[in-house]
Amino acid sequence: MKKIPVGILGATGMVGQNYIALLAGHPWFKVNYVAASPRSAGKRYGELTAGRWLLAKACDPSVSGLLVEDANDLSRAAAAAARGDLAFVFSALEMGKAEILALEDSYAAAGIPVVSNASANRWTDDVPMLIAEVNPSHTDIIPSQQAARGWKKGFIVVKPNCSIQSYMTPVWALLEAGYDVKRMVVTTMQAVSGAGYPGVASLDIVDNVVPYIGGEEEKSELEPLKILGSVENGRIRKADAPLISAHCNRVSVINGHTAAVSLEFGAKKAGIEEVKRIWSEFSALPQQLKLPMAPEQPIIVRDEANRPQPNKDRDADKGMAVSVGRLRACPVFDLRFVGLSHNTVRGAAGGGILNAELLKAKGYLG
Amino acid sequence: MKKIPVGILGATGMVGQNYIALLAGHPWFKVNYVAASPRSAGKRYGELTAGRWLLAKACDPSVSGLLVEDANDLSRAAAAAARGDLAFVFSALEMGKAEILALEDSYAAAGIPVVSNASANRWTDDVPMLIAEVNPSHTDIIPSQQAARGWKKGFIVVKPNCSIQSYMTPVWALLEAGYDVKRMVVTTMQAVSGAGYPGVASLDIVDNVVPYIGGEEEKSELEPLKILGSVENGRIRKADAPLISAHCNRVSVINGHTAAVSLEFGAKKAGIEEVKRIWSEFSALPQQLKLPMAPEQPIIVRDEANRPQPNKDRDADKGMAVSVGRLRACPVFDLRFVGLSHNTVRGAAGGGILNAELLKAKGYLG
Amino acid sequence: MKKIPVGILGATGMVGQNYIALLAGHPWFKVNYVAASPRSAGKRYGELTAGRWLLAKACDPSVSGLLVEDANDLSRAAAAAARGDLAFVFSALEMGKAEILALEDSYAAAGIPVVSNASANRWTDDVPMLIAEVNPSHTDIIPSQQAARGWKKGFIVVKPNCSIQSYMTPVWALLEAGYDVKRMVVTTMQAVSGAGYPGVASLDIVDNVVPYIGGEEEKSELEPLKILGSVENGRIRKADAPLISAHCNRVSVINGHTAAVSLEFGAKKAGIEEVKRIWSEFSALPQQLKLPMAPEQPIIVRDEANRPQPNKDRDADKGMAVSVGRLRACPVFDLRFVGLSHNTVRGAAGGGILNAELLKAKGYLG
Amino acid sequence: MKKIPVGILGATGMVGQNYIALLAGHPWFKVNYVAASPRSAGKRYGELTAGRWLLAKACDPSVSGLLVEDANDLSRAAAAAARGDLAFVFSALEMGKAEILALEDSYAAAGIPVVSNASANRWTDDVPMLIAEVNPSHTDIIPSQQAARGWKKGFIVVKPNCSIQSYMTPVWALLEAGYDVKRMVVTTMQAVSGAGYPGVASLDIVDNVVPYIGGEEEKSELEPLKILGSVENGRIRKADAPLISAHCNRVSVINGHTAAVSLEFGAKKAGIEEVKRIWSEFSALPQQLKLPMAPEQPIIVRDEANRPQPNKDRDADKGMAVSVGRLRACPVFDLRFVGLSHNTVRGAAGGGILNAELLKAKGYLG
Repeated sequence: MKKIPVGILGATGMVGQNYIALLAGHPWFKVNYVAASPRSAGKRYGELTAGRWLLAKACDPSVSGLLVEDANDLSRAAAAAARGDLAFVFSALEMGKAEILALEDSYAAAGIPVVSNASANRWTDDVPMLIAEVNPSHTDIIPSQQAARGWKKGFIVVKPNCSIQSYMTPVWALLEAGYDVKRMVVTTMQAVSGAGYPGVASLDIVDNVVPYIGGEEEKSELEPLKILGSVENGRIRKADAPLISAHCNRVSVINGHTAAVSLEFGAKKAGIEEVKRIWSEFSALPQQLKLPMAPEQPIIVRDEANRPQPNKDRDADKGMAVSVGRLRACPVFDLRFVGLSHNTVRGAAGGGILNAELLKAKGYLG
Repeated sequence: MKKIPVGILGATGMVGQNYIALLAGHPWFKVNYVAASPRSAGKRYGELTAGRWLLAKACDPSVSGLLVEDANDLSRAAAAAARGDLAFVFSALEMGKAEILALEDSYAAAGIPVVSNASANRWTDDVPMLIAEVNPSHTDIIPSQQAARGWKKGFIVVKPNCSIQSYMTPVWALLEAGYDVKRMVVTTMQAVSGAGYPGVASLDIVDNVVPYIGGEEEKSELEPLKILGSVENGRIRKADAPLISAHCNRVSVINGHTAAVSLEFGAKKAGIEEVKRIWSEFSALPQQLKLPMAPEQPIIVRDEANRPQPNKDRDADKGMAVSVGRLRACPVFDLRFVGLSHNTVRGAAGGGILNAELLKAKGYLG
Repeated sequence: MKKIPVGILGATGMVGQNYIALLAGHPWFKVNYVAASPRSAGKRYGELTAGRWLLAKACDPSVSGLLVEDANDLSRAAAAAARGDLAFVFSALEMGKAEILALEDSYAAAGIPVVSNASANRWTDDVPMLIAEVNPSHTDIIPSQQAARGWKKGFIVVKPNCSIQSYMTPVWALLEAGYDVKRMVVTTMQAVSGAGYPGVASLDIVDNVVPYIGGEEEKSELEPLKILGSVENGRIRKADAPLISAHCNRVSVINGHTAAVSLEFGAKKAGIEEVKRIWSEFSALPQQLKLPMAPEQPIIVRDEANRPQPNKDRDADKGMAVSVGRLRACPVFDLRFVGLSHNTVRGAAGGGILNAELLKAKGYLG
Repeated sequence: MKKIPVGILGATGMVGQNYIALLAGHPWFKVNYVAASPRSAGKRYGELTAGRWLLAKACDPSVSGLLVEDANDLSRAAAAAARGDLAFVFSALEMGKAEILALEDSYAAAGIPVVSNASANRWTDDVPMLIAEVNPSHTDIIPSQQAARGWKKGFIVVKPNCSIQSYMTPVWALLEAGYDVKRMVVTTMQAVSGAGYPGVASLDIVDNVVPYIGGEEEKSELEPLKILGSVENGRIRKADAPLISAHCNRVSVINGHTAAVSLEFGAKKAGIEEVKRIWSEFSALPQQLKLPMAPEQPIIVRDEANRPQPNKDRDADKGMAVSVGRLRACPVFDLRFVGLSHNTVRGAAGGGILNAELLKAKGYLG
């Protein structure tokens, strides 16, 4: 099988670098087009990132040699697409919301699908916000999206914020098993890589906790409702529950967001053993389709008293599995647990790649 | 005024060292007797702790020269008391529960009051568990305690666990102002010094969070109920509310426990401005008595979006004030906030000293 | 004594904040004038720094209320000086070298002495680079500096880089005692606060060492030669020795630069006990003048095997003492030791204040 | 090829766990025998290490099921060897020196070769201390060792301390290329994992540097001389040079020891480009033999100004390559550079495995 040529918008930033690292050796996709700000354009990707490559894994040599394009210059992307050198783009753009909205739109309008990591389009109501194991059917809205905008081949899908990944799949598994989750109090302890680079100043995090991340609590409370929503008349109608209170904190961890969760069921309550069974056995469309980036087991239940922990569990199953532990009764609600996921893999580039694999498997990427 | 000669049981451990550091220059008390394990006995305190002194502040030279006593050898303490060289002891013992119970009892029986930092006697129902600003009246139980045991001068008081200090005083201020707090979900992010020395291994905490501290959640949920309880027939009858769910985590912070709290009021609900007013104006007996270790303002309200933070707020008012911030509405309950207190000062040695000052002011220390 | 009104240029940055914190309650100086970039001008200092105050110690309330001036607007400073409201300025400017040179010159030309923390003027050959205990006589060059430029009251003095403070005073003490130091290999492990704010990204320093700090090794090797130089014909002629090889590293420490030093004596060699004696007894002009910011003992010798350490020794004597330890024979050279000093106190604002105190005592500040 | 059954002595400790993790899927060796202290004996390895497994990579399931043996009970090991279930052991024993000497001897005497990570036998003069790329010919001493002790099949080899790995191979490459290295000043910044578990207390390392590691400087200075020594009359005669001064520091890094090195050549001096060429082209016996654990390129030269760094370079080539950078002239000696290697892989278990592979390839393991 010839690999599908893909592009990265915002290729030099931290999320862009993660896309390139994770796509090295990907069985379906090959990074063929890298775009960044105008001042980066025209340089070799490898030269541009030498001395500011942020990852332990070295840059894929086949990408190092690519010339960086200006992400704003759509004509270059359109020409590449016309030549068959660019099938779709991952958007890791770091700009103002209005600029991202305009730019992602223009790529889609030019017939280049956009699988976005940016938050700009998350609340566009005909843009699906996908966690491949949770709401894969939301891709059904793509034809309506295209029709409404007069797009033929292009479209936009987004992924949600990294902060919700550690509890969203576990909660979905319970909902799918027939247990309503009415209310949740969630306290996150988030890694510094979630803020990009340079991101969090070391003076703010060595020997410290910052109990605030701008905009993060709102995203953590509201995005789950769209993900759990239903497709109605070409729009996603957001769900009413669960009601979530999120407390978001930054801690001195490089990678891996941890969440301490108390949750309240509706009338039908699951016991601890039942929840463990549901989570251990949970499997979804990405697993059935054997998508390359899909974890074999989306939720890994840890039985040790002191797990999951970022430095031991974040890399579970390529960094794509959510690890849960400390499942126990809650004196205030019904149950409580700790969830953990890798924020730059599951919560960013890896989640985006899995979304693209899902779209490919469903035939949306040609 | 001649200073009152005090002793430290467990003087070489981390809490013991903190007592010595905080008592340097104390206007009422002077460390005159230091006791530790039998193998430490007979050595100079300064020699014993050279190379394993854990604090930035150097050891008080007047204590360095003291000979260390065997904490198990009561005859030495009794002799010192008889000579007028030992009025009471701070217990920072690190042993098994049964041993601490026996040892603290024996000091009290010998006429030497014990102001304890250890957890062994926290649930002894005629031993008051004091936060000087919250339940100073619980000292009223001391005569019954003495009568029941046939003790004349000796008695035991304890302080609660360090993990509750960051939310207990704020909650008490609300209760005192007439607002019932029915339920709380509390997630703590606790400093490594709370585990003593050597305590938490660096391999467990650099680039990591440990979402578990043995026994800590139970203490965090139950101790508030005793502190808020009432004295009835020579016993403390624990309160029924608030119902607390505690999630206790260890993070990479040296000093300062942070708590993210969601709380639900009873029928009468306080708004945000009202709560800020209550907290800012809160003052209690230690403030009225102008006890030396008492913070001028027990609760400091921070208005910045990203405060309190351990490395900026833990030392507020000698490390004795609780800093609160991020007060905002809670989608699930009524309000939420972040509380922070210094765990080895307010939560350990400083809190113990304040308890002793309260006892002195009330006439219990002769 | 009426306090001398001083100004801070670059008052909102990290070094500026440190000046304000350290000058709170200073017996001689009072911060009366704060200047920063044009976009900060006209706002209250307290409002401007709320939410970005970097220190644990709160901002001096008397400074919070000051209106921030535009540091480039010399007319405002000159008017304040004319009114008697500004006697001299501490420069903590963060700009390009050419701009700082021009701006510091213009203040001095306007009759306002500049005690600078910036590096721009360090190699101006009639500007003394002062460590108050090491080369206080270099202030003798000030009249020549004024004459050469036609300045009456104004002048410029600078302090050296923070990286050299942990070994410069110990080496000077040896030189003064008659022991030539010919060669040194110095490896520094420097705190993140040395890079200002936001400075070092947390992604670069949590679980990491960065073995490079731009320009730092050159400063660490060359600045000692000017400090040890002699005043000749209105110029400072730099010394020829010691020859220094500096390896500068950034480590995960908030405050406190540590240096591991191997040194080679000339023909006359001091033994370990002799060096300890020299260091312990070292005292200099700031101590004789009892300058307020001067440490009682400029060099503190630690005998424990594992000291000095940043988190235990950086605050020694108000953060102004240098702590040394691990003095032992060197298999390659003669001796080796570890030196440690507080980089934002001794190495920045505290050192600047001590220089100003020295200048005041010598009559240069009116 | 049937895999060779190997044992791990000290299997539950940190180094033991690393052996098990690194040997999972090894093409030649299979862990078949795990031994630890008497109190661990008789339990399943997986049960024993649940909750105290220290690595991100999960324990090999085939090892989890093994029954743990008492390392002191040689009869069990001998029986396993007799059955063909144990060909040799990796020693990761954590005991006193005398006990390790006795125990390693007893295994070798029983015909079970010992590839040791412990320091006890490093200075036994007929025991080779191997870095497979540096002194593979030292294995020639094994027959003399066996003859002297009357051992037939058993023997002992050791590996050197982890602290020297980051500079030893680079220095060897220069020596081999004909450039004598006369003197070196080395300052190490070492990871906490080097101290094992629990090892370094978090209170000692968060926001801190500990400029002392007991015994480490002596090892760092002397072990290179044995490694560079010559085999003479069944003894290893240590080399006379280079003369090394080592300053060993503990920093807040999980894995990866960094060394800042200044070195002086003899009469023949290599320039920077020549050194880069030598290092880049360096290859040794493990590479020629294509040993499974051997890095393709033993020394990786980084050209970026700020590399190598622990969190980006420690895992280079399975954690087995040494990364060097910042090669530049030294004002005091000739050259200086920064070297970095993974202390628990290259410097411990990985180095031990490579030694065993070398021994196997040379026919010493049957």
